[in-house]
Amino acid sequence: MKKLITISREYGSGGRIIGKLLAEKLNVPFYDREIIDLSVEESGFSKEVIEGAELKAKSGFAYNLSTALNFNEGFGGALSVNDKLFLAQFEVIRKIGEAGEGVMVGRCADYVLRELPGVTNVFIHAELEDRIKRAVEKYGENPDKVAQKVKDYDKARKNYYDYHTGLKWGEYSNYNLSLNTSYITEEMACELIATYIESRTYK
Amino acid sequence: MKKLITISREYGSGGRIIGKLLAEKLNVPFYDREIIDLSVEESGFSKEVIEGAELKAKSGFAYNLSTALNFNEGFGGALSVNDKLFLAQFEVIRKIGEAGEGVMVGRCADYVLRELPGVTNVFIHAELEDRIKRAVEKYGENPDKVAQKVKDYDKARKNYYDYHTGLKWGEYSNYNLSLNTSYITEEMACELIATYIESRTYK
Repeated sequence: MKKLITISREYGSGGRIIGKLLAEKLNVPFYDREIIDLSVEESGFSKEVIEGAELKAKSGFAYNLSTALNFNEGFGGALSVNDKLFLAQFEVIRKIGEAGEGVMVGRCADYVLRELPGVTNVFIHAELEDRIKRAVEKYGENPDKVAQKVKDYDKARKNYYDYHTGLKWGEYSNYNLSLNTSYITEEMACELIATYIESRTYK
Repeated sequence: MKKLITISREYGSGGRIIGKLLAEKLNVPFYDREIIDLSVEESGFSKEVIEGAELKAKSGFAYNLSTALNFNEGFGGALSVNDKLFLAQFEVIRKIGEAGEGVMVGRCADYVLRELPGVTNVFIHAELEDRIKRAVEKYGENPDKVAQKVKDYDKARKNYYDYHTGLKWGEYSNYNLSLNTSYITEEMACELIATYIESRTYK
């Protein structure tokens, strides 16, 4: 079975770093948000539109999309720029998933790939104080502004995910494994995920 | 650091079995719902009241409790039989926690022990079809009635937890580790939890 892993994460929980370690350990490609966005940029969306979309997501894309499809209005008329952007991202992630193996971080990849067999979905979280600490020490965030940024980013990620999937970000039933990284190292989180993947069955 | 582990679980996910395996592996006592209830029975509550309480829980105990405390009404007047029962369970779990080590399954133990240092909280879940299968094959449930029972029990557990804690049952932030056991064996789930515990830090 090909190894496809998606990682969703709270801001500052180390999810991206763990994803990169995991890709190295499993010897599969690593795709983070920036790599996915780059492919989308190539299809004509500006960097500004792509970066702004997450912060603007509110609610109801899954509903809007099914409505648009049911009434056969066509995407061109019924969908906003942000929704068209999501569909472009959707396509990039779907192609990566169908092509083979990899670790994908963010961008609702668990939802996009939900019909493919054998995807392992992981959620990484941590206590707020540790996420603030990591954001300052490892991501170089401004200590005076970081607490608000952590909260804003989590809210944006939740809105973006809930809006586009009709599911709830972080809800256990979407994931194979959820880990609190406040009490274990990034290496150990990688180790635990790899053990799950190597011992799991497929349906 | 003493090893205290709480396990919350969807009905039919194997959480109780995993807890028992884990207690054996870590060489600490195992406390399931029945053992906790037995202690509560000894303090004067009937078996019927104890078993009925979970199914009757609705919402707002944490709020009611804080209101009762704030207005200094005394438990005797302000609390229902079910709420008094929860306080008796609370005391049993707190004493187990303060006395030492163990694996505790169910009964909001994660919430009761939240102020103790070094408790590891685990949530076990699985796909509905696998929980139905386990309930029939391992718990001996009636195949004709099991699907409804699984749903009723999950709903009751969620209500009971949310009512008594003011938190949300299954929400990732309450747990160190959440595992979907549809794709791994009970032994592997035990192994992953033990690895987390043995490599975790304490604050």
